Amino acid sequence: MKIAILGGTGNEGFGLGFRWAAAGHEIIIGSRSADKGAAAAEDMQGRLPNASISGTDNATAAQQADVVVLSVPYSAQHGTLASVKDVMDGKLLITVVAPTGEKKNRVSLLPSGKAAAEEAQEQLGEAARVVAAFQNIGAHHLLDLDHQMDCDVLVCGEKGDDKKVALELCEAAGMRGVNAGALANAVVVEGMTSVLIAINILSKSKSAGIRITGI
Amino acid sequence: MKIAILGGTGNEGFGLGFRWAAAGHEIIIGSRSADKGAAAAEDMQGRLPNASISGTDNATAAQQADVVVLSVPYSAQHGTLASVKDVMDGKLLITVVAPTGEKKNRVSLLPSGKAAAEEAQEQLGEAARVVAAFQNIGAHHLLDLDHQMDCDVLVCGEKGDDKKVALELCEAAGMRGVNAGALANAVVVEGMTSVLIAINILSKSKSAGIRITGI
Repeated sequence: MKIAILGGTGNEGFGLGFRWAAAGHEIIIGSRSADKGAAAAEDMQGRLPNASISGTDNATAAQQADVVVLSVPYSAQHGTLASVKDVMDGKLLITVVAPTGEKKNRVSLLPSGKAAAEEAQEQLGEAARVVAAFQNIGAHHLLDLDHQMDCDVLVCGEKGDDKKVALELCEAAGMRGVNAGALANAVVVEGMTSVLIAINILSKSKSAGIRITGI
Repeated sequence: MKIAILGGTGNEGFGLGFRWAAAGHEIIIGSRSADKGAAAAEDMQGRLPNASISGTDNATAAQQADVVVLSVPYSAQHGTLASVKDVMDGKLLITVVAPTGEKKNRVSLLPSGKAAAEEAQEQLGEAARVVAAFQNIGAHHLLDLDHQMDCDVLVCGEKGDDKKVALELCEAAGMRGVNAGALANAVVVEGMTSVLIAINILSKSKSAGIRITGI
């Protein structure tokens, strides 16, 4: 797949892109600044000489890709999507965004009462399809390909075919994806990020994650 | 501990009470009707001849207990709490309630935008303390003491000492409890119940649960 990562210079976007590039996918790192996108791509290419990696601004990256991954802080979600909206028709957006409140370890729902992923879908309109995934994973082991990720990825969205793509990308990044139902369910998956931060603080750990049992 | 279970005639309340009784706790099964509470207690006593079990109406049960467990459908939460409010001062309420929407596999937040557990705390006032736990466990293996529960229990609340009691009751019921932070975080834990129902449907399983990894 040709995958654009909006906000791909950040830890999580860069880490996921790194794993997907290592798995043979073509990665386009997007950033607000084309220069920063290019510099991150050079960095990644240095780590993975045989992979297919480039970097540019978010809108150009989205235009060139089949699948677009949104990996920015929630505060930048609306602006980033506005900058790519024109080129998203017919494309799949996989959003990694997990809003946290001022106290990151205390769940704080958005004023809309909806998932950030639902807000993204509303902003892009029906021509683009949004799937939520990777909200609950920590970034700091992604760059170590030998590290076995000890967590599952919950995947929420409306269309089975789109979730299938996301599930493939979970596997390519070394994690099991689990179909977790409708896009509305992303409000829980996003909120789980704050719960995991709370658990990390309370149990003095750094990489609390979730696994689904019994399936 | 002397534990009252409001709605203890239902599958989850009965199952938890059964495991706690087997672990040596004193169980008082509460029901809207004292007769139904007594009949359920007789049933449980028949399964556990050496345990200390009684049954009565919800208000009498709450009055007699140190710890009160709320195990009713969300639609009955307000009425049940109203019936015990007068005797809850100074007591710990552990709520198992997990609201689901009309489509049980699609997360639907409450109109208040809060957790049902937070609504319970508001209704009871400051004299009682509310902790949320056991939202995400299935009832159908609780009556089989040999069945190793393959899930963790997320425990949310404001006071460490109260959560400690809930964590002890997790262990007594054969599960690991995990301190998941503030009571506000229960909105995610409650919503996870709908996500697990979705996962059960989509993966054709019956007992999807969650485990916390990396701690």
